[in-house]
Amino acid sequence: MDTSWEARAEAASFYGFTDLPSVHQRGTVVLTHGQGPYVVDTNGRRYLDANSGLWNMVAGFDHPGLAAAAKAQYDRFPGYHAFFGRMSDQTVTLSERLIEVSPFERGRVFYTNSGSEANDTLIKMLWFLAGAEDQPQRRKILTRANAYHGVTLGAASMTGKPYNSVFGLPLPGFLHLTCPHYWREGHADESEAAFTARMARELEDTIAREGADTIAAFVAEPVMGAGGAIPPSAGYFQAIQPILKKHSIPLISDEVICGLGRTGEVWGCESYGFMPDAIISSKVLTAGYFPMGAVILGPDLADRLQAASETAEEFPHGFTASGHPVGCAIALKAIDVVLNEGLLDNVRTLTPLFEEGMARLAEHPNIGEWRGKGLMGALEAVADKDTKTPFPGHLSVSERIANTCTDHGLICRPLGQSIVLCPPFILTSGQMDEMFTKLQGALNEVFSNL
Amino acid sequence: MDTSWEARAEAASFYGFTDLPSVHQRGTVVLTHGQGPYVVDTNGRRYLDANSGLWNMVAGFDHPGLAAAAKAQYDRFPGYHAFFGRMSDQTVTLSERLIEVSPFERGRVFYTNSGSEANDTLIKMLWFLAGAEDQPQRRKILTRANAYHGVTLGAASMTGKPYNSVFGLPLPGFLHLTCPHYWREGHADESEAAFTARMARELEDTIAREGADTIAAFVAEPVMGAGGAIPPSAGYFQAIQPILKKHSIPLISDEVICGLGRTGEVWGCESYGFMPDAIISSKVLTAGYFPMGAVILGPDLADRLQAASETAEEFPHGFTASGHPVGCAIALKAIDVVLNEGLLDNVRTLTPLFEEGMARLAEHPNIGEWRGKGLMGALEAVADKDTKTPFPGHLSVSERIANTCTDHGLICRPLGQSIVLCPPFILTSGQMDEMFTKLQGALNEVFSNL
Repeated sequence: MDTSWEARAEAASFYGFTDLPSVHQRGTVVLTHGQGPYVVDTNGRRYLDANSGLWNMVAGFDHPGLAAAAKAQYDRFPGYHAFFGRMSDQTVTLSERLIEVSPFERGRVFYTNSGSEANDTLIKMLWFLAGAEDQPQRRKILTRANAYHGVTLGAASMTGKPYNSVFGLPLPGFLHLTCPHYWREGHADESEAAFTARMARELEDTIAREGADTIAAFVAEPVMGAGGAIPPSAGYFQAIQPILKKHSIPLISDEVICGLGRTGEVWGCESYGFMPDAIISSKVLTAGYFPMGAVILGPDLADRLQAASETAEEFPHGFTASGHPVGCAIALKAIDVVLNEGLLDNVRTLTPLFEEGMARLAEHPNIGEWRGKGLMGALEAVADKDTKTPFPGHLSVSERIANTCTDHGLICRPLGQSIVLCPPFILTSGQMDEMFTKLQGALNEVFSNL
Repeated sequence: MDTSWEARAEAASFYGFTDLPSVHQRGTVVLTHGQGPYVVDTNGRRYLDANSGLWNMVAGFDHPGLAAAAKAQYDRFPGYHAFFGRMSDQTVTLSERLIEVSPFERGRVFYTNSGSEANDTLIKMLWFLAGAEDQPQRRKILTRANAYHGVTLGAASMTGKPYNSVFGLPLPGFLHLTCPHYWREGHADESEAAFTARMARELEDTIAREGADTIAAFVAEPVMGAGGAIPPSAGYFQAIQPILKKHSIPLISDEVICGLGRTGEVWGCESYGFMPDAIISSKVLTAGYFPMGAVILGPDLADRLQAASETAEEFPHGFTASGHPVGCAIALKAIDVVLNEGLLDNVRTLTPLFEEGMARLAEHPNIGEWRGKGLMGALEAVADKDTKTPFPGHLSVSERIANTCTDHGLICRPLGQSIVLCPPFILTSGQMDEMFTKLQGALNEVFSNL
């Protein structure tokens, strides 16, 4: 019997979001610990994780302050719920803090264990409101192609990725508009301004076709994350927000990836100058140290949902670990670490270097564009730069690049035919050099072999 | 501005599963710490939590071994995911351990952050399988009235509680059979055996009506938890399992509440002598110290799902914190604490005392029945014991009882017109006496005032 870590992992795990041919060929990477932005596997190999785990471990893999906050709370009160009018003191404090750092002057917070659960909860909130406000038909959710909102039935239905067809998803009533990615979706000779106007027209037309009073919300990531680090076209949110307002359709900002610093502002909506009706938060919220998500309701939705709950006497929804005291203590510390202990400042300092490095790599004839915002970005591989023609799918070009990077001690993420980089906020400029040097080597190696 | 904990909680929280009239009248209970099975609020009031938090804090609120396991892992590796063929060593070890303690001789584990996510994941697994096995119509899920499986769109649709109508749920294709609660659902002069046979016939008829090849699974809690601690009628699982087998419909055991000791065996399915095709686990899995759920696939489903994934090259599903190293380290310790450090033994020791205490309380003329299994049980309030007539709904009888208990330092849970008890596994017999004495007092006080 093979007792290696790799064999043990394969024997008892059902793998998700994993390219199985790659794993069979290369073996599972079993990790034991980390150091700053690096992780180390059972064979002692060390990797610079330019993925921040999954966009979340922004303070690295051994932050003493975060570990101390977790440990102190485990000694103090290691678990409770938030049902039946009971909750921990940490939960109360975090809700206040989240409203304080939110763009809202007041609001209410509901906790979940993930971004998926937060988006799924949002749907239930909107459907609850539809019933309570005597508009039971107001159930449709608008999102965009390439959007990623999670994996529960509701969140996966919001997600605009083709792979969801293997589950027979999306559910009916989840509509996906065009991805506002000018480089890929813009027509020949269409200016960026004309493209944005077309996106806005599509929204107007969709609302007219479906009926404004059948639409519960429009949900958008400020920068699309798992769609491939795709910023919106110039003026996108300024073009769509007035349309939504005119039709009384809430605009929800899914800030699971952008939120709490990634784009260089506290929230992605601040980077793009729009004010949402609610924010979905997760990931950086605990810097990856605990599973947690939150729906942060702005004043209007908070008031309407509260009124609906008072009438029903109860909002019959909640997760066992919603508002877990350890998660809340960690989140309180994570917000402090990001906002007050230099991490957001470092994102801002590093952004010009990051942009410069990306631009340099994008000079390669097989990189069609680089795109991004703050400390997240993507390089899009193309077979032909002028025609933007992708490589044939069977070449698995981005998988090859990512695997070659792994061989050289760099973790980055293949997404479609792009390579996504979203390093921890604690990165040094030396570590950024290492990231770009290793990626440059992998790009040269893979492209020259194709 | 009111800066009390209660006011601060109400100002920034959107409450779930909370009776708002009670909270407005009584105020939020804000908890700061715990001691064994007791929790303490910001006013220094101490409560015996006969609810184990939410069925999960079975080792109490200050277990040194569990805190030590958490703290050690925070120092070692405080976060990672399980995507892209990478995962932590703790994740690998826990999967092996879960298969070892499961009733399956082999299988595969998939991690989530909650029982809701685990049930939602199960649905996606079954729908994925339906597509892969060329039976795209095999999507219906059978559960029972009063079943509780969680709150995501999928898990809430499985749940058979009337309150889900406020969301316009369940989704189509989620069918709820009769609750196998003999005392409430049995006809006059119907023996328990005849009742069980009727439940089995209903299943047969449903399968015939819907078409066996449209049904993806039958999902059941061995003892219904949030439905009101309802054990199945005698012979129930023995009657239904052969029917499901005959029609090749998987039987899934939702062990979120029963699993890992609550019923006096490791799994509820063991207490009731049936072998499921998969197990849904959560809650006791980490003793409430971390949000975690798991789908534990038995051999047949594991093989079929693995084959489907190999063909698709990927199972495109997973949560950021799936298989979190800290959660896995805690779960490894929690399993040990329950199975090897005396907690399961204590459940078995306490069960006769628990049954005796419940039977004594059930002598009250306003208690229609007591029911339960292991260390979980319910007392059903009735206006008339002979006719089993409930109290008028506006009297909120179980809320009154639970609130009166809280006034006397005992937390127990109102569910419908029943009071549910599910104390921590670490309870002493003295603490059990305290629980029953306080509850007896509350019952006498409330019933005599009605």
